[in-house]
Amino acid sequence: MSPLLKEIRGNPMLWLLAFVPVVFVAANFAPGAHTLLFVLSVLAIVPLATLLSHATESVAAKTGDAAGGLLNATLGNLTELVIALTALRAGEYVLVKASIAGAIVTNTLFMLGASFLLGGLKHHVQEYNRVSARMQAGLLFLATVALLVPSTLATADSAEGEAFTQTLSAGLAVLLIVAYGLGMLFSLKTHRELFASAEHGAEGEAPWPIGLALATLAGVTVLVALVSEIFVESVQHAAAAFGMTPAFVGFIVVALVGGAAEMASAFSGARKDRLDLSVGIALGSASQIALFVAPLLVLLSYVIGPTPMSLQLWPGAVVIMLIATLTAALVTNSGRSAWFVGVLVLMVYLVFAMTLYLLPPRVQ
Amino acid sequence: MSPLLKEIRGNPMLWLLAFVPVVFVAANFAPGAHTLLFVLSVLAIVPLATLLSHATESVAAKTGDAAGGLLNATLGNLTELVIALTALRAGEYVLVKASIAGAIVTNTLFMLGASFLLGGLKHHVQEYNRVSARMQAGLLFLATVALLVPSTLATADSAEGEAFTQTLSAGLAVLLIVAYGLGMLFSLKTHRELFASAEHGAEGEAPWPIGLALATLAGVTVLVALVSEIFVESVQHAAAAFGMTPAFVGFIVVALVGGAAEMASAFSGARKDRLDLSVGIALGSASQIALFVAPLLVLLSYVIGPTPMSLQLWPGAVVIMLIATLTAALVTNSGRSAWFVGVLVLMVYLVFAMTLYLLPPRVQ
Amino acid sequence: MSPLLKEIRGNPMLWLLAFVPVVFVAANFAPGAHTLLFVLSVLAIVPLATLLSHATESVAAKTGDAAGGLLNATLGNLTELVIALTALRAGEYVLVKASIAGAIVTNTLFMLGASFLLGGLKHHVQEYNRVSARMQAGLLFLATVALLVPSTLATADSAEGEAFTQTLSAGLAVLLIVAYGLGMLFSLKTHRELFASAEHGAEGEAPWPIGLALATLAGVTVLVALVSEIFVESVQHAAAAFGMTPAFVGFIVVALVGGAAEMASAFSGARKDRLDLSVGIALGSASQIALFVAPLLVLLSYVIGPTPMSLQLWPGAVVIMLIATLTAALVTNSGRSAWFVGVLVLMVYLVFAMTLYLLPPRVQ
Repeated sequence: MSPLLKEIRGNPMLWLLAFVPVVFVAANFAPGAHTLLFVLSVLAIVPLATLLSHATESVAAKTGDAAGGLLNATLGNLTELVIALTALRAGEYVLVKASIAGAIVTNTLFMLGASFLLGGLKHHVQEYNRVSARMQAGLLFLATVALLVPSTLATADSAEGEAFTQTLSAGLAVLLIVAYGLGMLFSLKTHRELFASAEHGAEGEAPWPIGLALATLAGVTVLVALVSEIFVESVQHAAAAFGMTPAFVGFIVVALVGGAAEMASAFSGARKDRLDLSVGIALGSASQIALFVAPLLVLLSYVIGPTPMSLQLWPGAVVIMLIATLTAALVTNSGRSAWFVGVLVLMVYLVFAMTLYLLPPRVQ
Repeated sequence: MSPLLKEIRGNPMLWLLAFVPVVFVAANFAPGAHTLLFVLSVLAIVPLATLLSHATESVAAKTGDAAGGLLNATLGNLTELVIALTALRAGEYVLVKASIAGAIVTNTLFMLGASFLLGGLKHHVQEYNRVSARMQAGLLFLATVALLVPSTLATADSAEGEAFTQTLSAGLAVLLIVAYGLGMLFSLKTHRELFASAEHGAEGEAPWPIGLALATLAGVTVLVALVSEIFVESVQHAAAAFGMTPAFVGFIVVALVGGAAEMASAFSGARKDRLDLSVGIALGSASQIALFVAPLLVLLSYVIGPTPMSLQLWPGAVVIMLIATLTAALVTNSGRSAWFVGVLVLMVYLVFAMTLYLLPPRVQ
Repeated sequence: MSPLLKEIRGNPMLWLLAFVPVVFVAANFAPGAHTLLFVLSVLAIVPLATLLSHATESVAAKTGDAAGGLLNATLGNLTELVIALTALRAGEYVLVKASIAGAIVTNTLFMLGASFLLGGLKHHVQEYNRVSARMQAGLLFLATVALLVPSTLATADSAEGEAFTQTLSAGLAVLLIVAYGLGMLFSLKTHRELFASAEHGAEGEAPWPIGLALATLAGVTVLVALVSEIFVESVQHAAAAFGMTPAFVGFIVVALVGGAAEMASAFSGARKDRLDLSVGIALGSASQIALFVAPLLVLLSYVIGPTPMSLQLWPGAVVIMLIATLTAALVTNSGRSAWFVGVLVLMVYLVFAMTLYLLPPRVQ
């Protein structure tokens, strides 16, 4: 365990790990102090995210960037999956859908844009494997079409229309999971040579042993999930205290904190000129949520939810997802990046964040 | 005629040609046996499509892939034109529009996607001339915009709104035909060198003499058109017996069987690594229907129809066409293909097919 | 001043400059003769536009095409800004918004398409710097998203919804201006080497001295602005006399004449195979109006307008802008052009122009 302890001693941000037990104690003894729990849980998630980032990079160093990015996205989205499952059991489908749509948009726009910006501030022009970016953008496009169709056509409020939407959602969910599985087969098996990363210079740090890295990945992911639950419980109340609308909280705040772990990895990759890793995490995570987590929740809602859940979103969310997907497709088309590309993508994100922040609650 | 007979003897699928006279006899003696006529006409169209494919390839071998693809698209769409003219004379404008929109979407998504998939299962990565694909995608984009505008703005149900939609449709029809003509001038005359195909290996089979090939093309096309009419008459009844919605029949079933001939050529080209031929047939056929057949029908409706026909579609059809065009533009942008690209395009098609299959009839 | 006089003597079109004093005299003595003033002001704007084009090219020869294009776009849009400010002071927000949206669409589709067509009729295939085109398309995409959001969500007619739209518009205006400023920093400072033009052959004409060129630029711009005001005042009446709808006048006629100066420069650049200059003027001008002029007007409306102006447009205008931006993004993606690309872009413009010409006034 010595590399882990050395890491913690050498990185002051990891000293915040002390807040992890504090937040559990506070949640036990003062479950009503929402603003306090909100601040404590954010403080606890940040160092956990940093630790997760180091562990993932160690594994990625062994497995190559594509597989490392996939691994990272999978474990990072465990958080989202655990949160959504809790909400699903409680029948809070609006929260489930808002957090899913928010996670997709935040990964596609904020994580990608900030990676381009942070990488571009250090490196003049960065290149990355555009085959991989294209495939992820293609998967996201398919998922957006699948979300668009039931949301557009389900205008009829009748029982017949509802049954149609529900049956269609279940069918589309199966379709998306099949597409995701075939995509993994394509990128990890039949055409894996297309997804090889661009050459990278030698790494400065020695990676952790693979056993320690995997154990850290697993353990820290569980801790992130536990702290995230406290965060989600407290965030609605804390947000109301800060004057934020529910749409802003679901789409922006939950998604930003829920994705903190992956963002730390993506940003660190961008700074080290390993933009393949960043783009892989950002778009890979978005497409995994859209084509695996969301459909899985629709199917699971038949088993553990009070009633089946559909894929239908409110129209504004569909427009936002469509624009996010289009932005990712247009921006990653060239395989090159500079700081202004990041600014453009972040600005599109800011347009949505500003709109959701100001939106009167009745309109949502 | 010996190469034709040799072909028929050597290819067991062509033995189905025996069903061609059978379907005509059955249509004469049992015009009410719709399910029987439906099965017989599908069995008769398949070998005719195969024959058409061979004849087209023989001509394409003489004229180069671009002109061969154009020729194939023209003759293949004769079927759609004949069917639509029959419906137009009868004033069945809903059927005309559904079959046109369905043919465009089926060619753009199903034929293109299946070509990529079938070619990709045999060849690891395939290259094709993206200049040609881009131009066809550009023409399709223009046609979609021209369909979008009257359909979006014609919300007013008043007589004034209707007159506006009708005048606008006629004007846009002329515009689209001019654009199509200029596109032919560009690709066959002023910039033909840009549309040359990628190098191909030597062909295994000896092509038919040009005279025989052209005669077969003409004769078989007429037979396809005649059988297709029996098919279209029977399909509505047979579909109701199988529990399909009218939208599904118009958009998917009619378009799939109506385009069987072109699909056989496109798929055979993809398997032989002549993806230029496949993309040329799929997108060329779609853009020909959108920019030539559909506008021609609008203009002809002034002469042979009971009342003028507009370009206005139901909003769902416009969304489907817009997404189909966008998919084709994004996917053909790189000029390279592998099997998963085909899967993605086919999945988009499946989303639409599933939606139309489940859609309650009242909503359409 | 001898090069200026030599230019005027050698170019018969510049003899039309005689109409500049005539139009001012006529406006003073016959302010009600709208059709006469309309014709006179068009006759006066044409030679001024030609002069502006020559002066800009002289400056561009000294500063490089990117900076020259920026300069040209800035001075060309002074006209639009002056017109809009006059209308803003009078509280005519519908006219302001129509002229802004029209200018963006006209620059993006008509100026770009006609440049490709005119250049392509003289040169077989033309290349241009696609990095620059992509950045401008990216900025336009951001502006379209920013216009789409308040226009889509502001369906609530309540006072609460209006306050939301207004606050959001002000916030988005600041966002767009910041994005525009960062774009200038990127293209003129940190990454200017990416925006260098493709090699050009030697120029035939000797450029004017820089002092004369700058003085001409400034003086002629003022004259264009003054004549444009007479034009705008007379155009509504003259259009009604010619049977044009208000939407057609605002979107098409005002935008075409208001942008005449920049068009002359862009077309002349395309004919001389300096397509970088043409694309820079067309897209640069469109993005400057969208990200600088329009937001500035929103912010200035708080100071000089009777009430604050929002960024909200009628839905049809948003659809048109979205399609125009998408067209520019798809078309400039390859960095190559031939005459048919110009035809395609112009056809999209014609679809909109035809629709607006025929649109019954009540629907707008």
